[in-house]
Amino acid sequence: MGAMVPKGKIFSGMRPTGRLHIGHLSVLQNWIRLQQDYDCVFSIVDWHALTTSFEDVQAMQTNIREIALDWLSAGLDPEISPISVQSQVKEHAELHLLFSMMTPVSWLERCPTYKDQLQQFGLKGKEINMYGFLGYPMLMTADILLYLADHVPVGQDQLPHIEISREVARRFNFLYQVELFPEPQAILSEVPLLPGIDGLKMSKSYGNDIALSASAAELKEKVRLMVTDPARVRKTDPGNPEVCIVHTYHKIYSTAEEVAEIEEGCRNATIGCVACKQALAAKLENMLGPIRERREALLAHPGRIDEILAEGSRQARQKAAVTMNLTREAMGVRGVLD
Amino acid sequence: MGAMVPKGKIFSGMRPTGRLHIGHLSVLQNWIRLQQDYDCVFSIVDWHALTTSFEDVQAMQTNIREIALDWLSAGLDPEISPISVQSQVKEHAELHLLFSMMTPVSWLERCPTYKDQLQQFGLKGKEINMYGFLGYPMLMTADILLYLADHVPVGQDQLPHIEISREVARRFNFLYQVELFPEPQAILSEVPLLPGIDGLKMSKSYGNDIALSASAAELKEKVRLMVTDPARVRKTDPGNPEVCIVHTYHKIYSTAEEVAEIEEGCRNATIGCVACKQALAAKLENMLGPIRERREALLAHPGRIDEILAEGSRQARQKAAVTMNLTREAMGVRGVLD
Ligand code: SF4
Ligand code: SF4
Repeated sequence: MGAMVPKGKIFSGMRPTGRLHIGHLSVLQNWIRLQQDYDCVFSIVDWHALTTSFEDVQAMQTNIREIALDWLSAGLDPEISPISVQSQVKEHAELHLLFSMMTPVSWLERCPTYKDQLQQFGLKGKEINMYGFLGYPMLMTADILLYLADHVPVGQDQLPHIEISREVARRFNFLYQVELFPEPQAILSEVPLLPGIDGLKMSKSYGNDIALSASAAELKEKVRLMVTDPARVRKTDPGNPEVCIVHTYHKIYSTAEEVAEIEEGCRNATIGCVACKQALAAKLENMLGPIRERREALLAHPGRIDEILAEGSRQARQKAAVTMNLTREAMGVRGVLD
Repeated sequence: MGAMVPKGKIFSGMRPTGRLHIGHLSVLQNWIRLQQDYDCVFSIVDWHALTTSFEDVQAMQTNIREIALDWLSAGLDPEISPISVQSQVKEHAELHLLFSMMTPVSWLERCPTYKDQLQQFGLKGKEINMYGFLGYPMLMTADILLYLADHVPVGQDQLPHIEISREVARRFNFLYQVELFPEPQAILSEVPLLPGIDGLKMSKSYGNDIALSASAAELKEKVRLMVTDPARVRKTDPGNPEVCIVHTYHKIYSTAEEVAEIEEGCRNATIGCVACKQALAAKLENMLGPIRERREALLAHPGRIDEILAEGSRQARQKAAVTMNLTREAMGVRGVLD
């Protein structure tokens, strides 16, 4: 009998900033795969959302429940990994504070995303140069290391933050002569870039998205509105699939064979845009149909989402407790109540 | 029957950096007076201690118990106001995180103590430019506002921090359209500047201090070693009390009448330094005697200090809970577990 190899640990989260769209689905599907092979904690990171939206918090609780519903509908399984809310696991705040004591402010200032984002928000007239915004990568570090996660599925843009979490882990272990924190590795997931139905960046705020929660009718309507080759006015005009959003979608959701057929049919005008869109809508409906069913099943039990989040947060706290006691111990602040 | 005027609220704390000396006594005596007129919370702010001592945490727990013992021996009454440990009231960390989201980093950078202290520690070869050190005044703000304290007894050097707490309170109330946080007022206490027995700054690390916990023998020895007028070699030499540390002490601990007598006796050589010191030692013994007795009574019950700190921290958490729920509510992050 071979020894059991301990599972790797994963932390990942999303900010609750509104309903998800089908562009997010590949991230969720990746999480669902990772659930099988890793001990995962997933978290709705509402405190993180405050770094940029502290002035507009009205929708926060609605957004939290909505994203939880999106996650669960997509198939994330709370029986396998806790689905938690960051602000319900206060240990994130404590570890953030403890790390703040030994993390050079220069590490945060030189983080490439910091000045970039300041500028981007500045252009929109939004002043976000808050202490917490500067500390964003350190809060993320606390999120990850709280669960001793050694792997973090992220996009390319998050790599500098993972690098900071590695540096903090290394520095902590060195300063306190412990082997407590792993240096987390990024799991870079290839996320296909899905444009909105008008070809611009897909975003709820532009109204060009296909919500994960879209009804069958909404879905059809969104596909109907998709921008095709503008030069193809009549069905008898040959089209250029390279400039058509429907084609971009087919490349993601249809088989290579189907795509080849469409390209040919479009170029020699044997397939019409209406039929081409119907084929795509069917593909998307195949994908969203089961998600919609799970959503309806969940919605049939009012309070179920809150229960899942409460239970997930409790489980997350339990995992966090071990790390916190060791961290407090190392830093001399483990007291009579801990 | 007149309406009861609600008591003002006070928060105050000290960092656990080692045994207190008689120079700290006037601060404690001030606290003891304030206990009668205000709802107070006193806190041993161990997380604050980490901002400058994160590299040297071995003695933290000893220091926490030692300072608690010093406070209680001096007469601070845990039956009147909770005596808590900051790290045992996790709400300080949560409120600190929440405030960080809406506190401009520029407020912290321009705080006059920030660059001063960086430089001072830098001269000693100590690198303390950590994220948490930059955020020190914001953690202090969280400490104060967590208890909705409207008054804070501080020294002159802390005034810029109180100013930041006022600004944060104002900004929070404005951003979230609530009347939650008071703008705390400083209670400036006149603390007589007590030199060490060698005339330098009194400090445990110089060995020139008189510990609050000094035994009768230690106290006598410290007074015996006090630096007097170096020009007065023999008892028959007239002395100059203005350059004598014993005289500096008499001015604080003896009556005006006694001081006048000593000054005259010294100048016309009718009082010897030995007698002059004995008179001071008696004064100090009068002061430290009852403190020593309380200390011994406390030490006779092992575990008593821990009990008091646990109970005080529990009470502090209870007070903090109300503020936290209102704060979470205002910022949209009050969840199902809160
Ligand atoms: S046939 Fe399909 S690929 Fe060609 S333009 Fe129409 S929708 Fe686009
Ligand atoms: S008599 Fe008293 S005041 Fe004068 S030098 Fe001696 S100790 Fe100092």
